[in-house]
Amino acid sequence: MKKKTIAIDMDGVLADIEAHLIAYYNKEHGTAITKDSIQGFSEEEAFKEKAILHGILNQENFFRTLPVMADAVESLLVLQENYELFIVSAATQFPISLSEKVAWLGEHFPFIKWENIILCGSKNIINTDYMIDDHSKNLDYCMGKPIMFTAFHNINQTHHLRVNNWKEVVDVLEKTL
Amino acid sequence: MKKKTIAIDMDGVLADIEAHLIAYYNKEHGTAITKDSIQGFSEEEAFKEKAILHGILNQENFFRTLPVMADAVESLLVLQENYELFIVSAATQFPISLSEKVAWLGEHFPFIKWENIILCGSKNIINTDYMIDDHSKNLDYCMGKPIMFTAFHNINQTHHLRVNNWKEVVDVLEKTL
Repeated sequence: MKKKTIAIDMDGVLADIEAHLIAYYNKEHGTAITKDSIQGFSEEEAFKEKAILHGILNQENFFRTLPVMADAVESLLVLQENYELFIVSAATQFPISLSEKVAWLGEHFPFIKWENIILCGSKNIINTDYMIDDHSKNLDYCMGKPIMFTAFHNINQTHHLRVNNWKEVVDVLEKTL
Repeated sequence: MKKKTIAIDMDGVLADIEAHLIAYYNKEHGTAITKDSIQGFSEEEAFKEKAILHGILNQENFFRTLPVMADAVESLLVLQENYELFIVSAATQFPISLSEKVAWLGEHFPFIKWENIILCGSKNIINTDYMIDDHSKNLDYCMGKPIMFTAFHNINQTHHLRVNNWKEVVDVLEKTL
């Protein structure tokens, strides 16, 4: 039987972009943002200086050095026994990130084949049975079942099934089998 | 009304990869392949030395300098009046190509936004109303209506609607409105 498919986001889901971005932003802008201080803020509210934010996201090695989200590797290894996994990351806005994201996946998730990596802009034409993402803009219109991965900017949104960490993702998806 | 969507391939469809590849391959391998000599061959039959082929496809500037397919720019400008266009290119196998493909599109098709660029591996989870591609492996399983763009390796395949050039693409798609 054909396995069901899952589209898995990178930033904020496989990659722990939050702490990394806060550290870079504080250093470049002289702010004292902390994880706690931005809970419930939109990304635009949390990182107000768009030019600085875009400068960071266009910097070499920013995406290449992101830490892996806790339990993500072990969880994908479990999930791929029963699902076909696609990594679907919005990346074309920041061209430097493209090859860095493929290299990052190769280092931390070597069991994900190049065939299953999708670097895109809009996720509107992605059709998988499930989509795990931290952004409403992707989940609201996805063709499969949306699963919202908790991030500072989505904690007040209640219209999608929420998971707070990778252990909860595995619990939810193994239960649906 | 929401516009119908088209997934448009790059290599062999928007970009004229054939002549470029023949020139590189002949130079590196000392062969005398011509466009005529490979008609009806598979890519593996036409470019037998896989290591040389992959070396070329992993070379800096190969994808960045591809010529634009005849009439492609004008045709996309016409089509985007009535369709939402997504550029969907298998690219993650060759990481160097990723940012080069985005830059190439920016130069030749500046009216295509980053949101509408998808660099992928398999195209199995792409869901658009139409897919224009030169490869059966992409068209055979696509979710929308497949349109085969003529290339040396597909001339003997008859199971998809065929177009031989961009003028024919526009004819076909403007008629279906």
